[in-house]
Amino acid sequence: MAKKSVYFFGGGTAEGTGEMRNLLGGKGANLCEMASLGIPVPAGFTITTEVCTEYYANDGKVPQNVYDEADVAIKQVEEAMGKKFNDPENPLLLAVRSGARISMPGMMDTVLNVGLNQETIPGLIKKSGDERFVYDSYRRLIMMYADVVMEKAAGIEPADGEGVRNKMEDAMEAMKQAKGVTEDADLDADDLKKLCDEYKQIVVDCFGEAFPDDPKDQLWGGIRAVFQSWNGKRAIAYRRIENIPDDWGTAVNVQAMVFGNLAKDSATGVAFTRNPATGENKFFGEWLLNAQGEDVVAGIRTPSPLNEETKSDSNKHLPSLEAEWPELYKQMDDIRHQLEKHYGDMQDVEFTIEDKTLYMLQTRTGKRTGGAAVRMAVEMAKEGLIDKNTAIMRVRPEQLDELLHPMLDPAAEKAQQYIAKALPAGPGGAVGRVVFTSEDAKEWAARGEKVILVRNETSPEDVEGMRSSVAILTSMGGMTSHAALVARGWGKCCIVGCAAITINAREKFFTVGDKTVKEGDVISMNGTAGTVYLGQMDVLPAEPEKNEWYSEIMTWADELRQIGVRANAESQEDAATALRFGAEGIGLARTEHMFFDADRIIYVREMILANNEADRRKAVMSLLDYQIKDFDEIFRAMAGKPVTVRLLDPPLHEFVGSLVEEDGKRELDALAQHVGMTPAQVVERIEALSEFNPMLGHRGCRLGIAYPEITEMQARAIITAAAQLTKEGVEVLPEIMIPLIGTREELAHQRAIVEAVAADVQEESGTKVNYLVGTMIEVPRATLIADKIAEDADFFSFGTNDLTQMTFGFSRDDIGTFLPIYLEQKILNDDPFAVLDQEGVGQLVEMAVQKGRSTRPDLKCGICGEHGGEASSVKFCHRVGLDYVSCSPFRLPIARFAAAQAAIETPRS
Amino acid sequence: MAKKSVYFFGGGTAEGTGEMRNLLGGKGANLCEMASLGIPVPAGFTITTEVCTEYYANDGKVPQNVYDEADVAIKQVEEAMGKKFNDPENPLLLAVRSGARISMPGMMDTVLNVGLNQETIPGLIKKSGDERFVYDSYRRLIMMYADVVMEKAAGIEPADGEGVRNKMEDAMEAMKQAKGVTEDADLDADDLKKLCDEYKQIVVDCFGEAFPDDPKDQLWGGIRAVFQSWNGKRAIAYRRIENIPDDWGTAVNVQAMVFGNLAKDSATGVAFTRNPATGENKFFGEWLLNAQGEDVVAGIRTPSPLNEETKSDSNKHLPSLEAEWPELYKQMDDIRHQLEKHYGDMQDVEFTIEDKTLYMLQTRTGKRTGGAAVRMAVEMAKEGLIDKNTAIMRVRPEQLDELLHPMLDPAAEKAQQYIAKALPAGPGGAVGRVVFTSEDAKEWAARGEKVILVRNETSPEDVEGMRSSVAILTSMGGMTSHAALVARGWGKCCIVGCAAITINAREKFFTVGDKTVKEGDVISMNGTAGTVYLGQMDVLPAEPEKNEWYSEIMTWADELRQIGVRANAESQEDAATALRFGAEGIGLARTEHMFFDADRIIYVREMILANNEADRRKAVMSLLDYQIKDFDEIFRAMAGKPVTVRLLDPPLHEFVGSLVEEDGKRELDALAQHVGMTPAQVVERIEALSEFNPMLGHRGCRLGIAYPEITEMQARAIITAAAQLTKEGVEVLPEIMIPLIGTREELAHQRAIVEAVAADVQEESGTKVNYLVGTMIEVPRATLIADKIAEDADFFSFGTNDLTQMTFGFSRDDIGTFLPIYLEQKILNDDPFAVLDQEGVGQLVEMAVQKGRSTRPDLKCGICGEHGGEASSVKFCHRVGLDYVSCSPFRLPIARFAAAQAAIETPRS
Repeated sequence: MAKKSVYFFGGGTAEGTGEMRNLLGGKGANLCEMASLGIPVPAGFTITTEVCTEYYANDGKVPQNVYDEADVAIKQVEEAMGKKFNDPENPLLLAVRSGARISMPGMMDTVLNVGLNQETIPGLIKKSGDERFVYDSYRRLIMMYADVVMEKAAGIEPADGEGVRNKMEDAMEAMKQAKGVTEDADLDADDLKKLCDEYKQIVVDCFGEAFPDDPKDQLWGGIRAVFQSWNGKRAIAYRRIENIPDDWGTAVNVQAMVFGNLAKDSATGVAFTRNPATGENKFFGEWLLNAQGEDVVAGIRTPSPLNEETKSDSNKHLPSLEAEWPELYKQMDDIRHQLEKHYGDMQDVEFTIEDKTLYMLQTRTGKRTGGAAVRMAVEMAKEGLIDKNTAIMRVRPEQLDELLHPMLDPAAEKAQQYIAKALPAGPGGAVGRVVFTSEDAKEWAARGEKVILVRNETSPEDVEGMRSSVAILTSMGGMTSHAALVARGWGKCCIVGCAAITINAREKFFTVGDKTVKEGDVISMNGTAGTVYLGQMDVLPAEPEKNEWYSEIMTWADELRQIGVRANAESQEDAATALRFGAEGIGLARTEHMFFDADRIIYVREMILANNEADRRKAVMSLLDYQIKDFDEIFRAMAGKPVTVRLLDPPLHEFVGSLVEEDGKRELDALAQHVGMTPAQVVERIEALSEFNPMLGHRGCRLGIAYPEITEMQARAIITAAAQLTKEGVEVLPEIMIPLIGTREELAHQRAIVEAVAADVQEESGTKVNYLVGTMIEVPRATLIADKIAEDADFFSFGTNDLTQMTFGFSRDDIGTFLPIYLEQKILNDDPFAVLDQEGVGQLVEMAVQKGRSTRPDLKCGICGEHGGEASSVKFCHRVGLDYVSCSPFRLPIARFAAAQAAIETPRS
Repeated sequence: MAKKSVYFFGGGTAEGTGEMRNLLGGKGANLCEMASLGIPVPAGFTITTEVCTEYYANDGKVPQNVYDEADVAIKQVEEAMGKKFNDPENPLLLAVRSGARISMPGMMDTVLNVGLNQETIPGLIKKSGDERFVYDSYRRLIMMYADVVMEKAAGIEPADGEGVRNKMEDAMEAMKQAKGVTEDADLDADDLKKLCDEYKQIVVDCFGEAFPDDPKDQLWGGIRAVFQSWNGKRAIAYRRIENIPDDWGTAVNVQAMVFGNLAKDSATGVAFTRNPATGENKFFGEWLLNAQGEDVVAGIRTPSPLNEETKSDSNKHLPSLEAEWPELYKQMDDIRHQLEKHYGDMQDVEFTIEDKTLYMLQTRTGKRTGGAAVRMAVEMAKEGLIDKNTAIMRVRPEQLDELLHPMLDPAAEKAQQYIAKALPAGPGGAVGRVVFTSEDAKEWAARGEKVILVRNETSPEDVEGMRSSVAILTSMGGMTSHAALVARGWGKCCIVGCAAITINAREKFFTVGDKTVKEGDVISMNGTAGTVYLGQMDVLPAEPEKNEWYSEIMTWADELRQIGVRANAESQEDAATALRFGAEGIGLARTEHMFFDADRIIYVREMILANNEADRRKAVMSLLDYQIKDFDEIFRAMAGKPVTVRLLDPPLHEFVGSLVEEDGKRELDALAQHVGMTPAQVVERIEALSEFNPMLGHRGCRLGIAYPEITEMQARAIITAAAQLTKEGVEVLPEIMIPLIGTREELAHQRAIVEAVAADVQEESGTKVNYLVGTMIEVPRATLIADKIAEDADFFSFGTNDLTQMTFGFSRDDIGTFLPIYLEQKILNDDPFAVLDQEGVGQLVEMAVQKGRSTRPDLKCGICGEHGGEASSVKFCHRVGLDYVSCSPFRLPIARFAAAQAAIETPRS
């Protein structure tokens, strides 16, 4: 049998199926699918993608069998629609559209209203009773045909503004001017009729031939134009970007046109099979009598509600479809259930009623809010429509974010243009008064103001001010800058790298474009989208614990997932939040912030300024009792759960840098007096600590090796706190993490110190402490020699922030200058500090896990970089065999959920 | 047959051989070797390492068979030496020494003069005629025995200063005080005899038993003490550091003592089979009549020359051994030839003549200067003593450095303490007046002064001043800091990271300790050792081209090596130097320095300040003609050889940073006027370019992607210059290198620009240019996806400086704060910026080569980091299959030579 080239659909039947996407394109397959289900679609037929390939192989000729098969199909369409192509009485009009395997929106051409000509126009006028509508349709046909078929498909490339479309637009403009009107709608039927004549003359002028009056010529011209547009410049460029092979070709869909504005008993509308905003299982939609699809979207008329139960304040005065045409509504409601059952998901449909006949134009999976996604998934599972695994796969982990953070009112956001858009570092919405210093933030907050701290960047010394603020906005920095890390840790709204704003901190204002925002002015921020607005917006609260569907789906997720989840937390308070969000331990307790407390920093600075070991040791040991208390609090809060404590990591300059700033003078003098040096001497020492590339400088274990007393003190504090609690009967599982290891010798050196101190403390206290010593894997070299490092490590925790910095050679603080360009030009698909780069950085992670376990099969492996709370990264961690992920407490639900999805996608045996 | 435990040597025979190092230890095997050759060594025997193991397995008991075998051996020794153990007339004295497989200098114990007692003392006095010598020997025996055998070996651990040795030293001190003398030598025979009695009383007081008078007791006490010392604290610690297994055990060497000071016809000396300073094939040495070995070394008496032909000014008045005892000299000269023939290398020997009998105490491969090493290797190969391969393996590549650079006179260096020692960044010696600014350097040099530029650090703007200086000294930076890179590129003496000096550039002086060095003061620098001296020293010139042996061995090396050598060079002048040192191409022509020329920097800055593409393009294009000239010069100089040009790499801030320094004000104002901005605006723009971690910032291809016009201009300059020269008939092989690639997309982006420009230029000029486009592999991520990158790269050039920075997470500019600690604590064995880290960074290099060639089998791979001129790194490059190494011109001989050695060690098929 010869290859079939044309597939008919319509009238409750179809020659193709939904699976035939490669042959029929996405659109064609979907139309067949609906038709096969008995859903009323405007009848039509699809010319296969193979014909497109043949067309090109054949020098632009359509094979004869296609003409023959199409003739048969047209007859079927006529029958199904009860109209005839080129019939003066009741003419069938056709739409000719492209349809590739994968949607290429707007990249290829379309010709509508095919079949209108001198003979069919009067018939249609009679049938519709609307002469203006018919001539407007005809005008559009001429313009589309001239532009698409006669000009583009012929390969004519007129100069800018010289194309046939421009000429026709000019003619229309001239007519409006002559009539003294500005809107197309102000032209009447006669005007349009005259315009059609003008258009036809333009066609002759441009191409030396007439616009075809034969509908068959129109039809085949349109079909050839669609094939031709597969190799149009735009389409080729699009395929390059999206990596779509050239030889796929496009199908052509020829479908009966239906008009929601053809006659009195016509209408058009859109509907969702469940409420896309709330997820409620109610049929939800809008419709307009005597209108075209675009009228619903355009928002010129207020659309009517679909049914009685979903009427809202804004449309309750309008008649529902249910009330107006109960039978049609019933038909639609049946289709609704049929579609949900068939697709197993909420559908977004478009429909048109032409002369009281319902046509479904399209169905597709409907977009929904996070809350709706969760509710639908749970309810559909309970209804038996899908199983639990499908329910879990149905919700994108990031959608949970909407449930976890307060949000700016979406309606308010829609109504107002943002003043700046930058990196969404901390999710959720916030509204507050702008302040420019941490001091001000604390003061204003103390008197009850909600404030937003606006800074070029933040440093550990800003932490109290940041805590006092409802949101943070910085003009510099990336997704893992200090501000971003801290804010995310607290679940606080934060936008960073906002280069559009210029801050004058001294005079307390910032400018953005021509606007100036002064201290005390109110701004609103959407930290999930990264947008900043002037003025006050409503904030919708987040109460996930009150959301039964959320609770249910999280329970399902926890049952399914195969890796652990821990939180990055460094205080009692953080630990409590972490537990509330489901943490099974702490994966990263940084210790440096503990050093910034007002009553401790003096000792830290004394330590830094000491110029011999004895003085340094004395200063360091002054911190011991504070640290014991720190760890006691965390361990107590996390009783029975592991707590990974990272030893001091940042370059020492961070603890003293502010003293050489303008406003550090007073503190500098006090410190100088305290340590018995002149301020100039102190400044000299501080400047000696300044580094060209502090990220790659004297930090991490390099500090503990140069100043072993720091490691000693911290180890003593950890083991002492653990021993005391153990005596009290509290189970403590400390995991001591040595940062920035690049050689085995570094780890051996630090481990020896920890073990010696631990032995001491255990002997002194007469208590055994179950501690582990491991390392943060964050230096590329560590991954390369992970087999050797594992011999001295009880665990690996991947610090993927720094690992990303070093693997890419990207400073997270400086990436703002080129990352936007990289994302725009698709050199990178994602910010690698937000989404783990599985191809590069991930390769190192996987290598390290394998090498590490080659020498220590029971090596515990986790991740504590920011990626531990990002869904695709969590899934990667599951796949490469990590034991747990750790992230900021507010990201835990996402991590738990993504882990469950990973277990479904690639279950571990 | 029972296991043999004791091996005799002496009298022209030996039971062991030189190969039995594991059983007899290094020393024992060597003594056997010499004895077997018929070389007169003091007879003795070795107790095997197996006995040591048994000793420990056996609770510290020596097996009976060892005693029995030793008795036999002692008889053999007596026979060989013509003396008898415990013989009152002509007593044989024995030395008991340790001897592990690998030398553990000073870590184990020794007992000398065993066999002296009440009966043998009179005999020895009679025989030597020197009572003082005998009692001094006896005193030493008692002390050593008490300390080593009775105290240490017994495991007694007295408090500090309370040991038996302290007590004996106190007794000697008391005696000197009583006599009113200060030197040991001032005590006479009676004093020493009395002291021996006192020592014996101390022994009784300390241990409750007497010092043994039975020589057998002394002997076995000594032997057990040596075994015991294998597990002494020092030895164990040493083994841990050196990774020597505990179960190797030590052998014990019991050997007849011979005395160069026993009688009138005795002497002692050291000799080299060839001149170790010049390599000349003449027997060279020194000797002293009636003296002990240590007297020759101590330098109290001027030693006599060995023979007539090697007399020097300082010893020509003294009798040579040749003249004094011609027969003994003849015997030694025969041994000299025998040893050279046997070992195939120059030997360093110690000898003693006791009573006109010659004993060789030791032979070992002699140390030599670089020049001597080369000459000996070539001459020995020509003499047929060794083959060419051996000759090449005989010279350490670094030794060539001595021939390539002027050196401070070693004698002068020996005579003076350096004022500072830091990183040896540029080899060779230099003397000059200190200046503190590049301006001063230029001015002083212009008026004929030799100057040394002293700075905290240098930047590209200092380049002219650096060029005007004979040496550079910086207080900051590491082996790949700017100063180091530039100086090494020029073969200029340079020391960096000299933290000991504190520079006051404003007042033009530096201090080091309590010394102050002012502008104009003369200092001398040894850039090979990293030492700085006050004042003027002689400088020995380097004239390798006049050195026939050097020329010859380099020819041999070039014939052997299997990889290419290129130079890092960026000017016509550099290229000429490179060719002189054997470059086969340029592996790295950096282009950034070209941007710093006074007449161009204004355009560079204009480019940087431009705030739209049009302005930026205009500024960039102003540089085109300059760049064409740059490339024309280099390509012309390297006609027929490949030249790798790296496109602009450094962060733009480097070109403008100096304008915001105090002394940049004038230039800033001029620039502001030039570009029509206010100085404040310019400063704002410059500050916006400043980065937290510029190393990981907006540089490399990230510039070319953000500002494609820079890449366009550079590509146009390269291809234009190449096309013009091609027309002239000059063969040009440009290889365009895109820096800092981390993703395939970056390379594809830049490659597309280069190819488009190249197509343009070739069409315009009607000339085909054979160019390649490749990338610098310096970002760890690039190595991980090298298979993908290779699809767009014609070549890889490993930029191991940056790759090392990112793989370790070490900023080369900041490493100075912890690298010394790391090296001292053996956390690192070498500075990874000087010696390629084969374990980590090398793993990435190897991976990238393999992955790259998996998709592009003909991928050309080279290295252009500083490691390309370091011997062990060059060998690594050979092993992993690189096609060439590229280094600074002055390192080329080392690279060529190391490559030859690599070809010998691991030949490629």
